[in-house]
Amino acid sequence: MGYEFDLIARYFSRPVPARFLGVGDDCALLPLDAGQQMAVSTDLLIEGRHFFPDVDPRALGHKALAVNLSDLAAMGAQPLACVLGVALPHVDHPWLGAFAEGFYALADKAACPLVGGDTTRSVSGITLSITVFGQVDPAKALRRAAARSGDDIWVTGCLGAADVALRLLQQTLPADPALLAATRHALERPEPPLKFAQSLAGVAHAALDISDGLLQDLGHILAASRCGAELLYDALPVCPALKGLPDAVQEAAVLGGGDVYELCFTASVAQRETISALARQAGVAATRIGSITAGRDIIVERADGSRVAVPSGGFEHFD
Amino acid sequence: MGYEFDLIARYFSRPVPARFLGVGDDCALLPLDAGQQMAVSTDLLIEGRHFFPDVDPRALGHKALAVNLSDLAAMGAQPLACVLGVALPHVDHPWLGAFAEGFYALADKAACPLVGGDTTRSVSGITLSITVFGQVDPAKALRRAAARSGDDIWVTGCLGAADVALRLLQQTLPADPALLAATRHALERPEPPLKFAQSLAGVAHAALDISDGLLQDLGHILAASRCGAELLYDALPVCPALKGLPDAVQEAAVLGGGDVYELCFTASVAQRETISALARQAGVAATRIGSITAGRDIIVERADGSRVAVPSGGFEHFD
Repeated sequence: MGYEFDLIARYFSRPVPARFLGVGDDCALLPLDAGQQMAVSTDLLIEGRHFFPDVDPRALGHKALAVNLSDLAAMGAQPLACVLGVALPHVDHPWLGAFAEGFYALADKAACPLVGGDTTRSVSGITLSITVFGQVDPAKALRRAAARSGDDIWVTGCLGAADVALRLLQQTLPADPALLAATRHALERPEPPLKFAQSLAGVAHAALDISDGLLQDLGHILAASRCGAELLYDALPVCPALKGLPDAVQEAAVLGGGDVYELCFTASVAQRETISALARQAGVAATRIGSITAGRDIIVERADGSRVAVPSGGFEHFD
Repeated sequence: MGYEFDLIARYFSRPVPARFLGVGDDCALLPLDAGQQMAVSTDLLIEGRHFFPDVDPRALGHKALAVNLSDLAAMGAQPLACVLGVALPHVDHPWLGAFAEGFYALADKAACPLVGGDTTRSVSGITLSITVFGQVDPAKALRRAAARSGDDIWVTGCLGAADVALRLLQQTLPADPALLAATRHALERPEPPLKFAQSLAGVAHAALDISDGLLQDLGHILAASRCGAELLYDALPVCPALKGLPDAVQEAAVLGGGDVYELCFTASVAQRETISALARQAGVAATRIGSITAGRDIIVERADGSRVAVPSGGFEHFD
């Protein structure tokens, strides 16, 4: 709507690479390499729902971009650029400066320059809107409908820390400053495995990030690909900080905890060595956790052959 | 963040053209024609600031997309696709259905399919985030820095109706139901001249929409292009509904009134006939209203040689 000139100019107009026409014109212009398509993802983040009102603005700037870069990673796309909308109840210069710092630090690291934006006054609370653009060869993109029966299922990184940090901050777990210190980084400073994800394009089949939790996100792959899965509970990479927590807390965090901007992906058994080599090159931990089946359900089995109870039916919510 | 599955599926998952990978994967994939760059624009719209809480959701769906398509028009870009974020305080099915109807009707008309989105619960009020994508040959894009001394200045459509409707609804003009009926369409159902704008790429020089008001938006062109302008007040295309209003009200609406999703553009004198022919073909009224000068100021002159007072200095606001 065009009310953006002052704050955009002050906080969100750092130079962009010469190949882009950036902030200040009606639109940014983005070039694509030959044979590539543009991958686009968008998110709305609302104060009090997706982040705490007193969150460190640097961490928020980082995470707002990270969760969207994670969607590019889940397609195997290379980040290209992003645009940002910020609605604030009043102009808070230190807050904006710190937010921009966190946002730009990750944008620089991910080679994903901010090329356009909009700032506006909100009626209450902070709302952020982030749209990211990447490029990917459409024949190699990691699509959620691409899993095949017999595929290995892999995850990157470790599971459970972000959920435990969130529950500590929400006080649904007993206060434990040492545990919060050990898990908070996972919640507030996720770093999607972008380079590794790009190297999986054309190698892996289906991929998703674990923003909604392992079982739910894997469920999205299974629903789109019309297949099932068997997971080995004891193969799951539990974050080390969770050791010592009660089994039930660990299980809920590892299987159900969201906000994990790592990848869950499937690939044929023949790609095991290639994937392990790519993970080593990228400095990413990649763990095989089970297989895609011809069934429709998710079965989670312990080493002793017992099964972990999995909530049946779909997940349906509006949060 | 991935909480979108239910409402996105219900309201915002109409089929997209086969060349796009659309709603439901991590990202939408957008192909570009050879030699074209992606033009991107994004906006945040906040209830109580950019629209009235009781606005007709069909009209809001239309306008939310229209104001963003207008940014594509101002670059001379062809619409390609859009993504949408909707934050609602609670799930209101009739509201969402009507909003989606208005949004899709314009998306269909403009050939700008919705290819991705995010719905979430807001803490208070409705927030909309829209990002539109178009394609344009970068050598032909209408950039705001491209005006040249001696250029004609043109506007499409007519001026003033949206501002008068807004002031009637805000009750800063005396109630006048007939006048509101005659002007409301301009405020609530703007239709950016997309086809005409695309035909201007490579023909015109600089362009902007008039979302902030003629003087302010022309000021943006002049600042970016480092030149000035002389306007003929009596040449301005005043919307017919404004006839009979006091001169001062008309003047404020025509020169300062925003929310006009028409184009203000500059082009060399040699292009007059071409532009008039393109406008006729597109069914758009295009009016020459003055010239770009080597100076720095905007001068607005009446037919009798007297000058209209123009606010000096920049425009700086956060709304």
